[in-house]
Amino acid sequence: MANPNDEVILMSHGGGGRRTHQLLRDHILPPLDNPILRQMDDSACVDIGGAELAITTDSYVIRPLFFPGGDIGRIAVCGTVNDLAMQGAKPLYLTLGLILEEGLLLSDLDRIMQSIATAAREAGVQVIAGDTKVVERGAGSGVFINTSGIGQQRPGINTHIANARPGDVVLITGTIGDHGMAVLSMREGLQFQTTLVSDVAPLNDLVSVLLKAVPSVHVLRDPTRGGVAAALHDVATAAKVCVKLDETALPVRAEVRGVCGLLGLDPLTVANEGKALVICAAADEARALAALRAHPLGGDACRIGEVCADPASRVLLRTRIGGERLVELPLGDDLPRIC
Amino acid sequence: MANPNDEVILMSHGGGGRRTHQLLRDHILPPLDNPILRQMDDSACVDIGGAELAITTDSYVIRPLFFPGGDIGRIAVCGTVNDLAMQGAKPLYLTLGLILEEGLLLSDLDRIMQSIATAAREAGVQVIAGDTKVVERGAGSGVFINTSGIGQQRPGINTHIANARPGDVVLITGTIGDHGMAVLSMREGLQFQTTLVSDVAPLNDLVSVLLKAVPSVHVLRDPTRGGVAAALHDVATAAKVCVKLDETALPVRAEVRGVCGLLGLDPLTVANEGKALVICAAADEARALAALRAHPLGGDACRIGEVCADPASRVLLRTRIGGERLVELPLGDDLPRIC
Repeated sequence: MANPNDEVILMSHGGGGRRTHQLLRDHILPPLDNPILRQMDDSACVDIGGAELAITTDSYVIRPLFFPGGDIGRIAVCGTVNDLAMQGAKPLYLTLGLILEEGLLLSDLDRIMQSIATAAREAGVQVIAGDTKVVERGAGSGVFINTSGIGQQRPGINTHIANARPGDVVLITGTIGDHGMAVLSMREGLQFQTTLVSDVAPLNDLVSVLLKAVPSVHVLRDPTRGGVAAALHDVATAAKVCVKLDETALPVRAEVRGVCGLLGLDPLTVANEGKALVICAAADEARALAALRAHPLGGDACRIGEVCADPASRVLLRTRIGGERLVELPLGDDLPRIC
Repeated sequence: MANPNDEVILMSHGGGGRRTHQLLRDHILPPLDNPILRQMDDSACVDIGGAELAITTDSYVIRPLFFPGGDIGRIAVCGTVNDLAMQGAKPLYLTLGLILEEGLLLSDLDRIMQSIATAAREAGVQVIAGDTKVVERGAGSGVFINTSGIGQQRPGINTHIANARPGDVVLITGTIGDHGMAVLSMREGLQFQTTLVSDVAPLNDLVSVLLKAVPSVHVLRDPTRGGVAAALHDVATAAKVCVKLDETALPVRAEVRGVCGLLGLDPLTVANEGKALVICAAADEARALAALRAHPLGGDACRIGEVCADPASRVLLRTRIGGERLVELPLGDDLPRIC
């Protein structure tokens, strides 16, 4: 019998799938338990001195540091900005925690810092506090970045994942799987000659335009670690509904589909860094899609499924050939350190 | 001639001394430049929707993870709480970013999580958002923790380091060097048989009591990385004053002094995690010391020096034998990964 003291952290604990959920449920959340944390949303909402704030944190351990379409600096800004935007909040300020490995080229650090500054300008946020630590060669991995973000809640907007209701439609703002496959294509031993480019981008302006057109959006969620599958699992579980996806409606670039097929990966479980899932009433679908498609980051927005009552807490996929299969929460082994 | 592209990050860039200052000045701060960041205080102050907030971030890469008097979890809570307290703010909420190394014992993670929860309760703050990442064995160092903190500013309180004025007195809330020496005593090859214990503790209640007694305190700063020397250098530079310390007044435990002597370290440059430097008008000294000494964490509070006009931007030490020497900003090589 295994001694519980011998249990150790596995790579799959970080994949955003079932093992991550178990780790959080059994080890991370219980000691910290409080009503705000229990919401388990992309950002926490608090009231300080009458101001409604959204607060979030994310660490970035992506490998390699530079990839087609971005780098760890750009993703550290966009990921945190997007977590605030998904809350319906207006992102305002970021903090920046750098853990640098001894031996990192200063020229690489400079590229990353420029990239952080550029992405922050694009998103209209300021880095207002920071911290820099150095660890010995071999004790780190080039650069790890933590960004925490603070935004101001828009009054009357509530995009919590528990708000999905039967009859709602599920939209996505563009193609899926681009980020994960672009990063993977750069990994050692997998030097595909592709034109795959990460979608990493700040989504706050797109969300702002959407919420102006449809303030009653029910749910916003960015399908990062664990992909669309993990994000919609969170929705189905929190709202106790069934999310039904149409395989033929999923926007996947041919190249992403090809590489996924080659590696036995499901594009639904691959991370995105510049896409949002939007769940709204069916009556709002046309207005929402029109608003999204008019924005440079939403040109490929489309409907990919709908919300039903049963079976509750499940994600189903109507397949190309007319069947229906359960979309399982990925275990978490597929794509380590993709964001 | 060295090719600038070949310059790399060194351990001393993380020590909190001169190399850290240079790294920030030349590589980290310029791309991000904005008026709030330029203050370079322990926390940033912003107004969101009429609420005056203090915001801070810190990453913890301490080695070993467990040490006499605490662990990386306790220090991650206390360090960030203290950064907010030094700003005169009331700490309210923390975010928690964990980077776990594959192979970490779950039982060690559990100890650290319990320690985070205990320290948060002691400090009266809640962890409201978190993120957990996993990196491969050999790409991390057991656990790295980032905590960002949000607090509410007390109206009328301003404890910025630039507020030190000639004629002020410099107080410390207790003995110096305990944390750094306790951690160092646990390092491989340095297994001193000592009773050294880290001072790691949340200082917000002590600060609250002090500010009630003396709301006009000029400066609060916790002497962590780089110790009292680095903290007072920051003060002297920001306020363009001279800080003069009395060597005979410095409270240093005999055991800390002994181990420092053995290793050729200056207690002034060793990190503390449960002490604050307090600078106030000479007329407020007695009231400040009385308030501090009445608190369990301030029993050894005492005056260690004063602020003069000249030579501006310098820290001087009146030595035991009556001379005066310049306290230099440590280069940063002395004590890597002490917090």
